[in-house]
Formats: sequence, C-alpha cells, structure tokens
Amino acid sequence: MTRQELIENIKRKQSFLCVGLDTDIKKIPSHLLKEEDPVFTFNRAIIDATAPYCVAYKPNLAFYESTGVAGLISLGKTIAYIRENYPDQFIIADAKRGDIGNTSEMYARSFFDHMKVNAVTVAPYMGEDSVKPFLLYPESWVILLALTSNKGSGDFQLIKDQEGVMLFEAVLKKSQNWASKEQLMFVVGATHGRTFETVRKLVPEHFLLVPGVGAQGGNLKEVAEYGMNKNCSLLVNSSRAIIYADSSDGFAESARKEAAVIQQEMSVYLRNKQIIQE
Amino acid sequence: MTRQELIENIKRKQSFLCVGLDTDIKKIPSHLLKEEDPVFTFNRAIIDATAPYCVAYKPNLAFYESTGVAGLISLGKTIAYIRENYPDQFIIADAKRGDIGNTSEMYARSFFDHMKVNAVTVAPYMGEDSVKPFLLYPESWVILLALTSNKGSGDFQLIKDQEGVMLFEAVLKKSQNWASKEQLMFVVGATHGRTFETVRKLVPEHFLLVPGVGAQGGNLKEVAEYGMNKNCSLLVNSSRAIIYADSSDGFAESARKEAAVIQQEMSVYLRNKQIIQE
Repeated sequence: MTRQELIENIKRKQSFLCVGLDTDIKKIPSHLLKEEDPVFTFNRAIIDATAPYCVAYKPNLAFYESTGVAGLISLGKTIAYIRENYPDQFIIADAKRGDIGNTSEMYARSFFDHMKVNAVTVAPYMGEDSVKPFLLYPESWVILLALTSNKGSGDFQLIKDQEGVMLFEAVLKKSQNWASKEQLMFVVGATHGRTFETVRKLVPEHFLLVPGVGAQGGNLKEVAEYGMNKNCSLLVNSSRAIIYADSSDGFAESARKEAAVIQQEMSVYLRNKQIIQE
Repeated sequence: MTRQELIENIKRKQSFLCVGLDTDIKKIPSHLLKEEDPVFTFNRAIIDATAPYCVAYKPNLAFYESTGVAGLISLGKTIAYIRENYPDQFIIADAKRGDIGNTSEMYARSFFDHMKVNAVTVAPYMGEDSVKPFLLYPESWVILLALTSNKGSGDFQLIKDQEGVMLFEAVLKKSQNWASKEQLMFVVGATHGRTFETVRKLVPEHFLLVPGVGAQGGNLKEVAEYGMNKNCSLLVNSSRAIIYADSSDGFAESARKEAAVIQQEMSVYLRNKQIIQE
C-alpha cells in the first residue's frame, strides 16, 4: 500500500486507529479453547467486529511465536483473512527485528515474500545495513523504533550526545537518509506527550506509529494535538483495551464498541485539523 | 547450563568455538534438496561433523523464519537433535529480540519454554524492561548486543554522550545492574580489534559472544589477545566459513576440517593464557 492510499483510507474511514492483535491464548475467552484454532477464531471475530473502525492491524510476532509452529499457523491464517476480506487494511508485523545485512535480508524475505505484510517494525541499534534490506520490496515499509512507549525507553533513547542531540533524535535524523517518507515510518510512544512537538520538527511529514494509548497510559488527545500533521500521518495503536475489552461470549461486540468509541474521538480530531470536512 | 559448566566445557574441549547455523536453503548442496527436510538434514550432518570441535551452536532465527512454518519445524528438529545427542553444547537462539515487558515475556516463553535453548540474543534499544523477562527462567541467558560486527554498528553504537561515553559502553555499564555474569553475556564483533581492551575494562568477567570472524573479516588472534580473560569467557562464532566451506557431497567433511583448524588455533591461545595446560 502506498502512503497516498493509506492517507485516503484514513480520510474515508475517519480513523487512524491500528488494532494490535497481541493475542495471548491464556487471555482469550475460555469458550474458544474448544475450537480447532482458538487464536485464529478469536482474531477473525475481532477483525470482523473492528474493521469498519480501523485502518491497520498490527499482530505482534511474540504472541504467535510463543506457542511455536501452531502460533505461526494462526498468524498466517489471520493475515490471509485480512488480505482476503479487508484489502484496505494496512498490516504491520510488529517484530522489532534488525540484524547484519545478509540476515536482515532473510527477515525481509520472511515478512514481505512469505507473510505478505505491508510493514515491519525494526530496531535501529545496528544501523543502516540492518534496515535497508527491508526496503527492497515494492511498497514495503520499515517502521523504525525511535522513542518507545515503555519505561526502559529512558535507559538509552534519551541519552544526549555532545551536541545535545538525544539518541532517538539521532535515529530520526540519520535514518531519513536511508529511505523516503514513502517507505519509512517511526515508532513514537503515546506516553511521551509533548515530545511529539520535538519529533514533528525533525520528521514533519513521516507517518508515526504510536503505541501506548490505553493500557500503557498514553493520551490520544495529546498525541493528536502535538503529533498530527496536515495529512494526519498518525497510526495510533490500541491492543489490550480493544481485544480484551471483555472476556465473555460477547468479546467481539465489546471490542467493536471500544473501537467505535476511539474512531469517534479520532474523527473529531481529524475535523478539528480540517483533514476531513464537517 | 551454568557459567561454570560452560567454562569447564571450553577447557575440556580446548575450544571456544560457536558454530553459526545460518542455514539458507538456497545455499546448501543441491543433492540435499531431494530430502524430506533439507535444512534439518544439512544441519544434522554439520552438527555431527563439528560437535567435537565446538562448545556452542547458534542458529540465527532469520534463516528459519524466512521459509515460514517449514523453517520453524527444521529449527525445532535441529535443537532437539543437539539436545539429545550433544547435551554439552550451549545453544544460542540468535534472534535479536526486545520489546515492551509483557511482549518480551512472550518471546522468553518462546525461547526458553518452547524451544528450550540456553540463551537468546537481545537488542538493548528499549532498555531494562525489555531485557528482564528473559532472565526469569532457570539458567536462562541473555546475550545483549553491545558493539556489533557490521558496518552500521558505527551509526549509533559509537555516539558519545556528554561525558564521552559511547553508546555501546553505556549498554555495557547499565545492563550490569540488570543481571549478573551468570546470566548475561554481550555481543562484541570481531571486526573491532583492539576495542576489546576497552570492553574488558568495563566487563572484565562476563562472557562475550564474538561474531564476525571469517566472512566478515574479523581476526581470531586479535580477539583472543585482547578479549580473553582468565576463564577465557569468549564464544567466537563462525558461520559461513564453516557451514559453506564446500558445496559438494563432501560438505560435512569440509566443515569438520574447517572447525578442526579453528579449534587447533584456539587451543594455542588457551595454552598461551594458561587456561589449559601443555
């Protein structure tokens, strides 16, 4: 999917919501455990319920890998299901990969040839040659970790260099030489509030993938206020608050309601910035 | 496996060689492609040939993930084969993972509960809470990226903070508060030569996993000279130079010879440092 297509989808659906499919077999409603593939059954129900309200899905690979081959099969079925039934959804493999060049090539093959996702999250620690192999596929996207939503983000990402540039700022600056805004996004956690102003000075046009709204305490209003540009250029992710809204038989309906509430709020922010009309 | 057991294995086998199982189905001898599981068949032959000369195996996950579920099955069989036939081998999942706490827990479950490896490589960018969940398993090890062997290692890892401390040095320093030398190792690339002196000042006792000898141009003699301590505390990895030494029917015998040559050289360095006796 191109950047322009993604922007059009956001306007049409009045939403910049990404639903995080962090599906843990230990947390899904117990009545699903009798199904042949409980994780896929759960995901399919969540997807059918939330697709009208979101523009992207983000399965986190860890949750699928944690059950080995069975988990990978569930993930493959989930991606195929989205592709077939909701082709306007942008699919992000949240994998936080990154390795030496010939190895990153293998990961790229895995995500873009095999899984056929639109984007993969990549950790920047190993530098340019660990990132570039992901950009070699047509319309493939790298979403580079810049400032993450977790407590440990302060351990290294905020270290200032001798010119006072923080590590996450160095990542934002340097990586712009590796790819254009047509293939590169950045992860900036919702928990950092006004830091979005700093981020937007460095990357005024790039898309930002924003985790940390909901269970992690980030604030959507603040993210929209400081992070949105004239094309929106935000994908705000919510995982647990949507997919585990309810552990009863009615889990999918509860997820739908939760996603609809967020979409409503997002449509207000899109109107306020005149990205969509009244 | 405990640190002490690993040290004993190094002394007994007069080797600190780790064989990297970066098995690419596009590079293995073509006569294996008629096998039911060519990747596992290749690995088994390499393992049988090299086990007397090494103390560790390091499959890089990217190579297995690149072929989807089939690759994960090959990996599972490879690990089980090592466990069953060569229980004195230390198995490293080279995965370079790292995510927010609840997600790193999932990765830890994958590697230590499901795959049953001894260690996993972890990227430090996301800080303490991305690393700690990997330490909760008995005798589990984290091998944290510090100074990697690739060209891109210079992009961020060498950035100096306002006290002149480079990022990789900050990683070495700070992470020592997260785990002891009984559970924590560091990746330091062989391509950095005398920088091992700097590393050993910061982490005199920790094990270092050293990639980059061979295809990437690192020098074993230099690594041993500047990186070895009184318990050795090095695992030097070689992947391509061993496993792709020969693409004919005789690939395993060539791998054996290559591993034996490296082991012979290593035994000299171990004697020079009086870690083993004449």
